[in-house]
Amino acid sequence: MKLGEIAAALECRLEGGGDLNIVKVSSFENAGPEDIALALDPPKTESGLSSGAGALILTDSANADRPALIVKNPFLALAKTMNLLEPENLPPAGIDDTAIIGKDVALGEGCHVGAYATIGAASKIGDGAVIKAGARIGAGCLIGKQSVIFENVALYDKTEIGDRTRIHANRVIGSDGFGYTKLESGESFKIPQRGIARIEDDVEIGASCTVARAALDVTLIKSGVKIDNQVHIAHNCVIGENTVIAGCTGIAGSVTIGKGVMIGGMVAVSDHLNIADGVMIAGKTGVHTNLSEPGVYAGPMAMKNMEYKRFLLSGKRIDKISKKLKELEKLIKES
Amino acid sequence: MKLGEIAAALECRLEGGGDLNIVKVSSFENAGPEDIALALDPPKTESGLSSGAGALILTDSANADRPALIVKNPFLALAKTMNLLEPENLPPAGIDDTAIIGKDVALGEGCHVGAYATIGAASKIGDGAVIKAGARIGAGCLIGKQSVIFENVALYDKTEIGDRTRIHANRVIGSDGFGYTKLESGESFKIPQRGIARIEDDVEIGASCTVARAALDVTLIKSGVKIDNQVHIAHNCVIGENTVIAGCTGIAGSVTIGKGVMIGGMVAVSDHLNIADGVMIAGKTGVHTNLSEPGVYAGPMAMKNMEYKRFLLSGKRIDKISKKLKELEKLIKES
Amino acid sequence: MKLGEIAAALECRLEGGGDLNIVKVSSFENAGPEDIALALDPPKTESGLSSGAGALILTDSANADRPALIVKNPFLALAKTMNLLEPENLPPAGIDDTAIIGKDVALGEGCHVGAYATIGAASKIGDGAVIKAGARIGAGCLIGKQSVIFENVALYDKTEIGDRTRIHANRVIGSDGFGYTKLESGESFKIPQRGIARIEDDVEIGASCTVARAALDVTLIKSGVKIDNQVHIAHNCVIGENTVIAGCTGIAGSVTIGKGVMIGGMVAVSDHLNIADGVMIAGKTGVHTNLSEPGVYAGPMAMKNMEYKRFLLSGKRIDKISKKLKELEKLIKES
Repeated sequence: MKLGEIAAALECRLEGGGDLNIVKVSSFENAGPEDIALALDPPKTESGLSSGAGALILTDSANADRPALIVKNPFLALAKTMNLLEPENLPPAGIDDTAIIGKDVALGEGCHVGAYATIGAASKIGDGAVIKAGARIGAGCLIGKQSVIFENVALYDKTEIGDRTRIHANRVIGSDGFGYTKLESGESFKIPQRGIARIEDDVEIGASCTVARAALDVTLIKSGVKIDNQVHIAHNCVIGENTVIAGCTGIAGSVTIGKGVMIGGMVAVSDHLNIADGVMIAGKTGVHTNLSEPGVYAGPMAMKNMEYKRFLLSGKRIDKISKKLKELEKLIKES
Repeated sequence: MKLGEIAAALECRLEGGGDLNIVKVSSFENAGPEDIALALDPPKTESGLSSGAGALILTDSANADRPALIVKNPFLALAKTMNLLEPENLPPAGIDDTAIIGKDVALGEGCHVGAYATIGAASKIGDGAVIKAGARIGAGCLIGKQSVIFENVALYDKTEIGDRTRIHANRVIGSDGFGYTKLESGESFKIPQRGIARIEDDVEIGASCTVARAALDVTLIKSGVKIDNQVHIAHNCVIGENTVIAGCTGIAGSVTIGKGVMIGGMVAVSDHLNIADGVMIAGKTGVHTNLSEPGVYAGPMAMKNMEYKRFLLSGKRIDKISKKLKELEKLIKES
Repeated sequence: MKLGEIAAALECRLEGGGDLNIVKVSSFENAGPEDIALALDPPKTESGLSSGAGALILTDSANADRPALIVKNPFLALAKTMNLLEPENLPPAGIDDTAIIGKDVALGEGCHVGAYATIGAASKIGDGAVIKAGARIGAGCLIGKQSVIFENVALYDKTEIGDRTRIHANRVIGSDGFGYTKLESGESFKIPQRGIARIEDDVEIGASCTVARAALDVTLIKSGVKIDNQVHIAHNCVIGENTVIAGCTGIAGSVTIGKGVMIGGMVAVSDHLNIADGVMIAGKTGVHTNLSEPGVYAGPMAMKNMEYKRFLLSGKRIDKISKKLKELEKLIKES
């Protein structure tokens, strides 16, 4: 593809080299003369000549020492260019002979259902959806248009998935929530989990994640949410639009999270809490109270960032105070 | 089902409306005139009229503004009512044509084996057990009566599962423990993991969990244990009866946990420790020493609760001391 | 097998009983007269008579109260003896009739491909490799000699696995990295993940782990690395030779870890960091800065061990200082 064609598709400014042939996007370090690379920060741009890239993606045309696309959001430009040059290799429409499609399943136009996949009775699969090999779709599930269910994913009965949503391999959606009531004998009596899990549109959920179904009502992941690998969302949670959750995080039951929240990796959120729109939570934070004000939270009790930093300095601050205290004691005893 | 029939089945007191037809259990907020709902806490009961529920589950008949079941343990009543009105939809007995059953497998009466499931040689499956689609049962495994193995679960060879135990989707039981010995070269030499994993009766284990097999002897999950999603139990652990472990927790090798222990989410327990009966461990706690006394533990070193709270206040307490210290210093210098 | 034959195979010193017949390796506590057991520490050796083992593995011949192997690394001797007496039970060479092998797949000599496994087009599988039931191997994957891919593992397209590497059940390798760019609307735009994941030789990766593919270039796990269950390695990470990572740990994107690093369980490492060769990180540590010096790190900010211990004592140290301060205040006011 010509660099000029890419610029036209991205509707961005082109700095020279419109006829240059671009084969693929590469990393800055490993790019060759037919590659385009992102030159993100000034040091990288200054050292631009050390990249063999034939063209660069830049934010400032002053740095264009070779043909370049000049853009506002360089990562967006990178993503769009990759989509142009190397679109995702999804399997073609068609139902594999070994796929088992239950009674009364409604399959949309142009679906792919892979080898050994199984789809339970009365499920509805939207146009262009892709169900990969070995995926287990329970009975009464809804899967929207162009959504992709990767290998060996298990959706329990009645799970709902919106449009253009991607559920990565070995993920489990809609398994039982963790609800028991303690008997006097010390045994746990299971509270049936008869609600559902609903994932809306344009969601992406990483590999080996789990979203539990609700006891009653619904566990709800709203549109645009992105969830990394190994995340657990417990029953009856509601995750607001466009919230992003990094890997290994666990959200306990009945937590309500607002819109546009950013949650780092390995964060733990206790049950029945509310987290306001736009809150940012640093990696490894423990959240044990509602977070109703915007801000950045960190540490074992989700302190505001400055407070947490002071807390971490406790050891050193105490050393200083101890020293001071000894001096004062000496002063007093001498006086 | 009539409300009176439900009361009879639960052997609980009925407050009016025995002839009322109840279709399903709903949440308090979303219940309709043919639904029964749990009105748990006084505020909810007081606002009872805001629920459209035809009937309520209550602990105190004084709050019965409509037909109600009066019970001691409301969650237990809720669970039992759900089981009456909407029993779990398990697949019928029968072996799918595509299931592959190994040599000398003993299948009990009324088992279900789903599509593309595989069962290794000489395994024994108890009466009424359910093996769902794509589950992989190794050779020489034992699965008890009425147990349910969900979609795509993998049980390694010789894994033992008791009666009425539920292993949720994509769980792995009996995979190799993490045991190596370091060579002088810096390489790790694998210690074979030839023991087994044994899960007793009435256990429930969430989706995407792992229980490693022992190096020698057995990794043992005793009866009545409930384990949430994404939990890892390492090799040679013993988990006592009726212990409950919330999501994302990791238990390192050779840990022995007593009976009725409550472990919160994302707790980490170091290897070779003992945790006494009845101990409670708050979410996100790090346990690095034996916990031999009952109590509630929290924080990075499993402190007793009060001690941990004081620890968390360190930053603020130091501020206070610093201020005091400056005052004293001033006092001394002025005197 | 005769004890003398085992000693010969291990090339270690034999202390009596060369003709003794040894059937299996057992734990010290449960061993019988035809078993060999490891008597690790002096107390266990002193209480040697309480083990019913017919033979022991010892480091010091002075403790040999019965036939024994005298060795330098007792765990290595244990492992080798287990391998001699009870070699791993891998399935025989052969392709199951139900396995689906894509176009232009190159299968080495003596491979096993299990029931319902699927291998995508143009993948290359080395001699003696084992692909277990239900495993999903994408298109264009490389799998080395004698490697074992356990049940229901999913390898995304173009994933590369070296020789003698073991990928345990329900693991996902090469799924999309977690990369998005935020739009002004608050929505996240996906950055395509077109790089690969490459696992070198002699690696072992536990059950339910995830290794994300790189956005560009490669996520690389070098030779000899051992990874426990439930670990997440994000995109573009490089993990150095012989590094060992315990369960439930999460490594964020673009982290570079050196050789021979030891990482405990449930550690979180933030993105774009460097960790030097030989660093040791205690369980549950949070790493938010580069660790460029060797040493043992612990705590929420990866402090050096002593510093962390002082930090944990903050509560008690403040108590002491408060008391001292009150005494001084009294002293001053009285003077």
